[in-house]
Amino acid sequence: MEILKQRILDEGVNMGHGILKIDSFLNHQLDVNLMEQVGLEIASRFQDLHPDCILTAEVSGIVPASMAAKGLNNIPVVYARKHKPITMSEPVFIEVAPSHTKGSDVNLMISPEFLHPGDRILIVDDFLASGKTIEALARIVLHAQAHLVGISVVVEKTFEGGRNALQHWGVPIESVVEIADMSDGEITFAE
Amino acid sequence: MEILKQRILDEGVNMGHGILKIDSFLNHQLDVNLMEQVGLEIASRFQDLHPDCILTAEVSGIVPASMAAKGLNNIPVVYARKHKPITMSEPVFIEVAPSHTKGSDVNLMISPEFLHPGDRILIVDDFLASGKTIEALARIVLHAQAHLVGISVVVEKTFEGGRNALQHWGVPIESVVEIADMSDGEITFAE
Repeated sequence: MEILKQRILDEGVNMGHGILKIDSFLNHQLDVNLMEQVGLEIASRFQDLHPDCILTAEVSGIVPASMAAKGLNNIPVVYARKHKPITMSEPVFIEVAPSHTKGSDVNLMISPEFLHPGDRILIVDDFLASGKTIEALARIVLHAQAHLVGISVVVEKTFEGGRNALQHWGVPIESVVEIADMSDGEITFAE
Repeated sequence: MEILKQRILDEGVNMGHGILKIDSFLNHQLDVNLMEQVGLEIASRFQDLHPDCILTAEVSGIVPASMAAKGLNNIPVVYARKHKPITMSEPVFIEVAPSHTKGSDVNLMISPEFLHPGDRILIVDDFLASGKTIEALARIVLHAQAHLVGISVVVEKTFEGGRNALQHWGVPIESVVEIADMSDGEITFAE
């Protein structure tokens, strides 16, 4: 998706240690038009698998997931909570994942009210790096006896190995853009 | 907005102490079609004030804010972070607000990169209860020497006094639906 690559080149900051700052359109300020195009791209890649729910994690996965849901006949989006609000009923599905940008472990909690046995689940997130957040979400899908049909992210950093770590789920993994190298202070896309 | 009132009556849970659980379409699972209608309603009420940025707070304000932004010619959305990611540059604007549903204080942080002097800011959030979160966001707008033009929320609980607490900002406050009473275990809308 050329428009997203160009925005990353124009506005992204390589902060070192594999950290990409794209706060001007995704992680702090949102360009909703760009996010809509990203969401429709994700939807087009998975429509033939007929997901009936998108699962994501708060915070930055929510808007790409919501825009993808609009392109998939408005299927529901469920976002895993990292901090349990008092409205969340017990019991909950909970998994723990280390956070790349927080430097600590985060809880991911989903209520069984919104994740049912047999549901066809598409996981959508902003980044695929080590794959640990998505691995945790996929384990929750398994706990719920739901059916994982695919994984999609806005930006994959292929050099962090997340794709390999997630292969065991046996589902398609689709990234809107793939960054192959950030080691020299540059941002280099795959092929 | 009758469709939202009906969904609140059908799916909302009055948890006591003024807490309304609407996790089935806003606070955990998202109905993106309903949220789009809510966003367009907010946009229609503020288009004549020509906001050029929407300010919200993570997490549950983000989707209504994004859908409103789509209805306002895709103006940018900035969401205050509650936990500082390592991508967030110093210095930041920071205010503290007590959280209704977390039972503790939360930080609200916005980078000056995305909030400029003279910007015309519309604040959008999911709930207006005591008004303390929105008060904190409005103080950040003031610190940034930006110009607050309006406040909009999806659900106002009129019995918690937030509207009065925010009157001193001198801007229109628009709620998509207003709940007047939750004291008897019921959910009663204004007039």
